[in-house]
Amino acid sequence: MASIKANARKVICIGRNYADHVKELNNARPKQPFFFLKPPSSILPPNSGPCLRPRGIKLHYEVELALIISKNVKDLGGSDEKGAMEAIAGYALGIDMTARNAQDEAKKKGLPWSIAKGFDTFLPMSDYISKSSIPDPHDVELYLSVNDEVRQSDSTGLMLFRIPRQLSEISRVMTLEKGDVVLTGTPKGVGEVRAGDVMTAGIRVGGKELKEGNMRVA
Amino acid sequence: MASIKANARKVICIGRNYADHVKELNNARPKQPFFFLKPPSSILPPNSGPCLRPRGIKLHYEVELALIISKNVKDLGGSDEKGAMEAIAGYALGIDMTARNAQDEAKKKGLPWSIAKGFDTFLPMSDYISKSSIPDPHDVELYLSVNDEVRQSDSTGLMLFRIPRQLSEISRVMTLEKGDVVLTGTPKGVGEVRAGDVMTAGIRVGGKELKEGNMRVA
Ligand SMILES: [Mg+2]
Ligand SMILES: [Mg+2]
Ligand SMILES: [Mg+2]
Repeated sequence: MASIKANARKVICIGRNYADHVKELNNARPKQPFFFLKPPSSILPPNSGPCLRPRGIKLHYEVELALIISKNVKDLGGSDEKGAMEAIAGYALGIDMTARNAQDEAKKKGLPWSIAKGFDTFLPMSDYISKSSIPDPHDVELYLSVNDEVRQSDSTGLMLFRIPRQLSEISRVMTLEKGDVVLTGTPKGVGEVRAGDVMTAGIRVGGKELKEGNMRVA
Repeated sequence: MASIKANARKVICIGRNYADHVKELNNARPKQPFFFLKPPSSILPPNSGPCLRPRGIKLHYEVELALIISKNVKDLGGSDEKGAMEAIAGYALGIDMTARNAQDEAKKKGLPWSIAKGFDTFLPMSDYISKSSIPDPHDVELYLSVNDEVRQSDSTGLMLFRIPRQLSEISRVMTLEKGDVVLTGTPKGVGEVRAGDVMTAGIRVGGKELKEGNMRVA
């Protein structure tokens, strides 16, 4: 659905939200959620071509559950489960593609992550997933395979900071607007893809496949 | 004009683009332009209330010339002056408000700048300035006073990387879209503002005042 891209004014990504992923990148476990922006121009809707690896870039995948925001939200309470659920219009599956070598260099130099996270096609997304098809966003399985080899497969129940807390932290800084996209963090197993690789990402609810898609890297 | 905010899908800010400003913050002079994103939700249109200082935040101003993008632009050449001018629909004056202590901490920890740069009201902007009223964007004077004391006042001729190069670097990473806003960097003289301070920012062309506005901090 092109409209996720058309309607997004900002894309906010939670970093380091699964303990085993924090460890695999030798990062510090955050005391509170932190986040960064990807530009809406980086969204790659289904069937709109390959994910492009920029020259000289070590391209990493990070499969994530995406929330599509339903309305303007400001200063949500950190344990306001009802408010958080009302702020969600629906879901999608997203892959937070990352120029890992550029990000590593930015981290070392204290520079922003925007370039490392913001190239065109760096956010392959699924079609819209209706809210009713995910009874509990903290109980779905995300997975990602590369050339049919499973690399990521974990439950969103492993999130360090749950969705109400994420939306609270974001909305105390920047007003969430209708159509905004929130990526909720990636489980362990991130890694590199190269030209010609095919990523298959999907989401299961109660053991049942809800959405699956392929994405070629070029 | 609310429409600058309504039409912006992304706001891209060039960092460290004036030599004396690089020095005053003890930063390294960049070998190539780098940039970061502010969310469109941070734009504060004229006459829409004060600029808000979040609790515990050391709030800094950075006056900048803003470009409003005219059309989709990708892979612009670095010395394509004509292409760059065609990509500009008009101008505005912007203040890239920055949570300096949060940014300093992010830099130290290798974390993204999005929070330090992205709070609501962190981008006070002027009305739209027509393209014809600025014959040469590299020859205008930007200034900013706090409580009538001049703090920043320099020519855009001092930019380390000129506008074509900026748009080239951005558009090789992320497609520029119609309505996007580009902040071109701040001259020396940045500093702190506190509740009750009034910032006056303006732009002069050929010694003549083109646009001036006041902004209260709360
Ligand atoms: Mg950033
Ligand atoms: Mg991620
Ligand atoms: Mg700035």
